[in-house]
Amino acid sequence: MREVCVVGVGMTPLGRHVDKRLRDLGRIACFAALKDAGVVPKEVQAGFCGNALAPAIQQETGVGQSVFWEVGINKIPVLNIENACCSGSSAFREAWLSVASGLYDVAIVVGVEKTYTEKGGVLDIGKADLEMMLGLVLPSYFAIMAQRYIYDYGLFAQDLALVAVKNRFHGSLNPYSQFQKPVTVEEVLSSPMIADPLTRLSCTPLSDGAAAAILASKDMAIRLNKKIITVAASVLQSGAYQNPMNLSNWDLNVRAAEEAYNTANLGPEDIDLAEVHDCFTISELLHYETLGFCKKGEGVKLLKEKKTQLGGKVPFSVSGGLLAKGHPVGCTGVAQIVEAVWQLRGEAGKRQVSNARVALTHTMGGMKDGDCKAATINILRTD
Amino acid sequence: MREVCVVGVGMTPLGRHVDKRLRDLGRIACFAALKDAGVVPKEVQAGFCGNALAPAIQQETGVGQSVFWEVGINKIPVLNIENACCSGSSAFREAWLSVASGLYDVAIVVGVEKTYTEKGGVLDIGKADLEMMLGLVLPSYFAIMAQRYIYDYGLFAQDLALVAVKNRFHGSLNPYSQFQKPVTVEEVLSSPMIADPLTRLSCTPLSDGAAAAILASKDMAIRLNKKIITVAASVLQSGAYQNPMNLSNWDLNVRAAEEAYNTANLGPEDIDLAEVHDCFTISELLHYETLGFCKKGEGVKLLKEKKTQLGGKVPFSVSGGLLAKGHPVGCTGVAQIVEAVWQLRGEAGKRQVSNARVALTHTMGGMKDGDCKAATINILRTD
Repeated sequence: MREVCVVGVGMTPLGRHVDKRLRDLGRIACFAALKDAGVVPKEVQAGFCGNALAPAIQQETGVGQSVFWEVGINKIPVLNIENACCSGSSAFREAWLSVASGLYDVAIVVGVEKTYTEKGGVLDIGKADLEMMLGLVLPSYFAIMAQRYIYDYGLFAQDLALVAVKNRFHGSLNPYSQFQKPVTVEEVLSSPMIADPLTRLSCTPLSDGAAAAILASKDMAIRLNKKIITVAASVLQSGAYQNPMNLSNWDLNVRAAEEAYNTANLGPEDIDLAEVHDCFTISELLHYETLGFCKKGEGVKLLKEKKTQLGGKVPFSVSGGLLAKGHPVGCTGVAQIVEAVWQLRGEAGKRQVSNARVALTHTMGGMKDGDCKAATINILRTD
Repeated sequence: MREVCVVGVGMTPLGRHVDKRLRDLGRIACFAALKDAGVVPKEVQAGFCGNALAPAIQQETGVGQSVFWEVGINKIPVLNIENACCSGSSAFREAWLSVASGLYDVAIVVGVEKTYTEKGGVLDIGKADLEMMLGLVLPSYFAIMAQRYIYDYGLFAQDLALVAVKNRFHGSLNPYSQFQKPVTVEEVLSSPMIADPLTRLSCTPLSDGAAAAILASKDMAIRLNKKIITVAASVLQSGAYQNPMNLSNWDLNVRAAEEAYNTANLGPEDIDLAEVHDCFTISELLHYETLGFCKKGEGVKLLKEKKTQLGGKVPFSVSGGLLAKGHPVGCTGVAQIVEAVWQLRGEAGKRQVSNARVALTHTMGGMKDGDCKAATINILRTD
């Protein structure tokens, strides 16, 4: 496998885009990434699209081809990838493999999603599984985990709320973020209850948006005269699907992280920033632990010491994360890559992490028997 | 890239499976393929699933993970791929790349779909595109092509019907085929009109089903003591999306075929059998021409001389094809691989092509601006 670089990125602001179709959002992101890379459409040799819900919500298949055509990219292999909340990051991984294997020199990946729907269809997804039909939809599942975690470590709902406060603060520094206003612990706790202890401000919103990245061989990246940002690891894993004895431990995350660190020859101590799947406040706390940034039960300590806030040792979700920046399902994994690249280039404006050289991105998605169907970890580094 | 072999295949009969979920169909196909390969679930290092419509019809995402779990395959990378009618064949290609690149030694691919629905949702797919909203759904589009082809070459509807007669005859020899009864030209022409000149028997049916294949490095295939069946080419291409001046020419097919033949270092004259995307009778005729088996306008001549029938020079759709065997969208590309492997091993029973050494499989899928969103060609060979 040869080294692969990310040579260009772009995205739309995330939020509610009622006036734009999937292909419109995708076009904006792809044009921005191409321009950023200094690559013209005809140079792109393969296209990958992450999308989870278009067949269900927009009655649309083949979204990638429609998006790429909008930017003048056609007559190349195009693949649409669905992996629940890992759709975008899984598409990024296939793009990486297509270049790493030597099959192509330049590939584009776009993640695009519109989740706003008059039919309210997002919670319907998953009803093929018994536990979802019985009411264990995602907020309920994460609420149970949060309750157990609070019980196990003698915490309070206030402690979890700190994640939302931090990420909303980060979002207020990011012009691409769906929510721009910081919130207080009191506001988080007094927002409408969704699934105890998770209030509305403890949950990721519905979002529309697109993000894109251009990947190239290292030779090509040098020719483009870009700052070299290398994919040090790109890992996809699936769950064990056994109702875990310990609800607040994600074996899936642990396995994915171990593989990613081994591949990159790096450890959590080398990571300068992490964009993780903070779909609910509880999630980010568990990511600290399962990705190796602290011991079990010590996540809240990291938070309270502001070690995962901008200015701390390793800022998490400095873009605002899913909680503030938003979560257009198939877009999210690619949007994380966009943030990582901006940070590694020192182009992240008010939310810039100083001396950022290694960034980790992480998504989890899909529910089955008390586990997730997929987790991805990508590690990007600059020399 | 290293050589990749198909070491095991399996499938369900295609047809109407009201009593089975996607994961049930997938399980049957995967178990059959694993048993055929002599591979145990724990040896499989990566999983790929082709499915086009589960989010729309079953409100289900992450189908691959659910299917693989049923057969005891978990804790590995799993990817769900949607590429309209090319979903299964595109998933096969990613599985091929994952082994060819050296990333994994053994991968599984499953194609699975249930298209029967009380909501009649299949024709809805595509309504994000203007021409589909205006009524140019797939049967209409292929009917226009058929009318033009008939006009250009002085043909009759009877000539096109010969494709259905041939493929229904082939299907009658295949226990996995949805339709088991041969039909006559008169029956094809007198069946209900769908879009003139395409009658119901000129169109692929709605089908449910699953097919699976195990791919392995050549070293692994030798260790498994299997007949060596190599992937000589695995090509994915997308359309040009320009309303073509000539409605009965598919530039997309021509480009995909050229790439496949170049990669395999073979030509149409080397192909012993072809499983093609005969979604409508007209399609198979155009495939003869655009894949290089005859000149433009000479497709019917091949048919009338029975050169593409079992016993002829190069049998097309000897499994029954989409017209008789059936077309569970995401399953189709993998089901073609299954047929190709059975033929190359000499295990195809009454429909065995004698001395088959090279097989070509081909799918096309998705509509956009008078072109297809995707085409795939796989060439399998045995020594």
